[in-house]
Amino acid sequence: MGLVVQKYGGSSVADAEGIKRVAKRIVEAKKNGNQVVVVVSAMGDTTDELIDLAEQVSPMPAGREFDMLLTAGERISMALLAMAIKNLGHEAQSFTGSQAGVITDSVHNKARIIDVTPGRIRDSLDKGNIAIVAGFQGVSADKKDITTLGRGGSDTTAVALAAALDAEVCEIYTDVDGVFTADPRVVKKAKKIDWISFEDMLELAASGSKVLLHRCVEYARRYNIPIHVRSSFSGLQGTWVSNEPIGDKKVEQAIISGVAHDTSEAKITVVGVPDKPGEAAAIFRTIADAEINIDMVVQNVSAAATGLTDISFTLPKTEGRKAIDALEKNRPGIGFDSLRYDDQIGKISLVGAGMKTNPGVTASFFEALSDAGVNIELISTSEIRISVVTRADDVPEAVRAVHTAFGLDSDTDEAVVYGGTGR
Amino acid sequence: MGLVVQKYGGSSVADAEGIKRVAKRIVEAKKNGNQVVVVVSAMGDTTDELIDLAEQVSPMPAGREFDMLLTAGERISMALLAMAIKNLGHEAQSFTGSQAGVITDSVHNKARIIDVTPGRIRDSLDKGNIAIVAGFQGVSADKKDITTLGRGGSDTTAVALAAALDAEVCEIYTDVDGVFTADPRVVKKAKKIDWISFEDMLELAASGSKVLLHRCVEYARRYNIPIHVRSSFSGLQGTWVSNEPIGDKKVEQAIISGVAHDTSEAKITVVGVPDKPGEAAAIFRTIADAEINIDMVVQNVSAAATGLTDISFTLPKTEGRKAIDALEKNRPGIGFDSLRYDDQIGKISLVGAGMKTNPGVTASFFEALSDAGVNIELISTSEIRISVVTRADDVPEAVRAVHTAFGLDSDTDEAVVYGGTGR
Repeated sequence: MGLVVQKYGGSSVADAEGIKRVAKRIVEAKKNGNQVVVVVSAMGDTTDELIDLAEQVSPMPAGREFDMLLTAGERISMALLAMAIKNLGHEAQSFTGSQAGVITDSVHNKARIIDVTPGRIRDSLDKGNIAIVAGFQGVSADKKDITTLGRGGSDTTAVALAAALDAEVCEIYTDVDGVFTADPRVVKKAKKIDWISFEDMLELAASGSKVLLHRCVEYARRYNIPIHVRSSFSGLQGTWVSNEPIGDKKVEQAIISGVAHDTSEAKITVVGVPDKPGEAAAIFRTIADAEINIDMVVQNVSAAATGLTDISFTLPKTEGRKAIDALEKNRPGIGFDSLRYDDQIGKISLVGAGMKTNPGVTASFFEALSDAGVNIELISTSEIRISVVTRADDVPEAVRAVHTAFGLDSDTDEAVVYGGTGR
Repeated sequence: MGLVVQKYGGSSVADAEGIKRVAKRIVEAKKNGNQVVVVVSAMGDTTDELIDLAEQVSPMPAGREFDMLLTAGERISMALLAMAIKNLGHEAQSFTGSQAGVITDSVHNKARIIDVTPGRIRDSLDKGNIAIVAGFQGVSADKKDITTLGRGGSDTTAVALAAALDAEVCEIYTDVDGVFTADPRVVKKAKKIDWISFEDMLELAASGSKVLLHRCVEYARRYNIPIHVRSSFSGLQGTWVSNEPIGDKKVEQAIISGVAHDTSEAKITVVGVPDKPGEAAAIFRTIADAEINIDMVVQNVSAAATGLTDISFTLPKTEGRKAIDALEKNRPGIGFDSLRYDDQIGKISLVGAGMKTNPGVTASFFEALSDAGVNIELISTSEIRISVVTRADDVPEAVRAVHTAFGLDSDTDEAVVYGGTGR
């Protein structure tokens, strides 16, 4: 008898009907002879409604009380889900993050899991129950305060529990049929990926794919927990994310896993930087001190005549203001002529472990963009990824062109999006 | 520096405005030099909405998961209240029932408090914080599961914390200005009571007054915690409930505290019972075995010719069906002719410790009812209370007549109801 961890996002449990549908799916897994642990997010828009309320009583809600507030959402959905399962004749018990042994640090609103001690979950399973666990939340090790895990927290809860309970698989149920070779909203002919390695999935997540967050995939890779991303609506086989294709999923890995895009970033160019050692360090120390994460960095070749160069980097648009302020404040220390800020950019990335050994990939990628009339502004590459920055308006066309050029197009329009997006 | 426990019901924190208003009131108490512990109910209709959701996924939600669900309501209100207080420049921390040390038995949906260990609350107060505690909830001693305290649970939480923390007073904030000599919705000239003894308050609560529940008053009497019932809207002095008038509240206790009424009961008459020892016992053992609480019991004088008598008793309407079924099932063992069920009754009660030593009270009471043309069907008395059962339709007129007869009428229409009713 295997142990399965299933995670359901907010769009899967948006209303009573959704909860009953999910309950049936959970009971099926139990009937198939598995021990079942379910991690659930807050219903539909609950979290947004709670945030609205908080903003009405306080202009800058944060910290301990904000976490206490937000965790009410999962408490509601998990209790309802347990009731719905009982109503199908099976025993279920719900557990808060604290009761499930999800121990975190004390950084409210974006806590990190530091230990998982699922003793009560194990006991409940041994008694034949289905265990329902609140996603997104834990309890701080030192102060015993309620914490939340931040964005993608419920997925991380699921993977962490799967690791602690030595589960066979962590199933992430969502409102799409799996991970696709490109965003189905942009590329109609995007294909569902049957299997993808942790490494390729990490690159896709870092490049803008939103189905799984980087943090959750990283956790799964560290503990070698296979993830099965699938739809709670269709019941179809989804995408397996693991070290090796497992079970009967003997698919040969394609050269290219997929095309990701991201239009949430902005570009800052620092103009007229003296081309001498220590200049780049001064810029990026300033940015790091402001606690801003940056993505791509490119330095132009220095113009011999002036001895000055330009350095460009990308960062989340939401951090743009903060970065500009920090650089301006440090202008005397760094020494530059001016700053250029541009938030009309997009990033297109091609991901695939196969590209290492296929020298033609980079050339084909640039040719596809060129044929589509897309101008490239920045380039960055890793072992298994090529990314370019273009105008934001060019992104959809660029993604489609690359998708087609690498033979990823499906014969049919198979991608379906079933609902909204969960937490 | 004194320690004050304040409790706010759902109608006081129904929306963001209400929460901000309550936050100001709490901060005032803190500024007056008190340590302040606040017990809060769920916002407005939250609990009803959660119950609706539960009924949509399961026809008979109950037990552990239902408690887990309902306690989300207080988690929301307490976190928002803590944020609103912080926004006024004061420090506040919110605590679940479990974190506040409210230990209960394991009877879900109507748990009883068996211990209060408020170590974390004390620590938080000592650090200068205002402590906000979720009402209505606790944690079971044996299983460490979340429990709820049932009806009036938040008031009981407040009194229990006040007792455990040795508070000077437990302030119960509600949507009326205090306890009145009669229900202000029925008697426009009802007067606010400045002080009332625990005993009289217990009788009023048992007789249908809804401002404070019996259970909470009983707890306060046992630990001698003065209760101050008052409005969160008006800020006026309300009603003090205590052993002795305290502080500058040197009021002489009136002969009569007030008139209560109750139309939530039904009457069952067991017709044609053999008038011999053991018959009444057989009836009430049957009722008790069905776990039904009864209120008044009256046995008619036996008709000499037949040797048969009738026994009537009152009970909550909601238990009527169950009682009839239990009696019919046991008819062979009990031996009676027929059952009569009547849910068109009302009960009017006159309460006051002074009536013991005032023999004219009973007579005046019956005269007032007679003058108002109200027929009396059952009578029951205690040391400090007289109750009669009448037709339900006669109740408003009967209450007004008695209120006037005992000189309770105010010179003005002073009673105001500010909102809905909380938990």
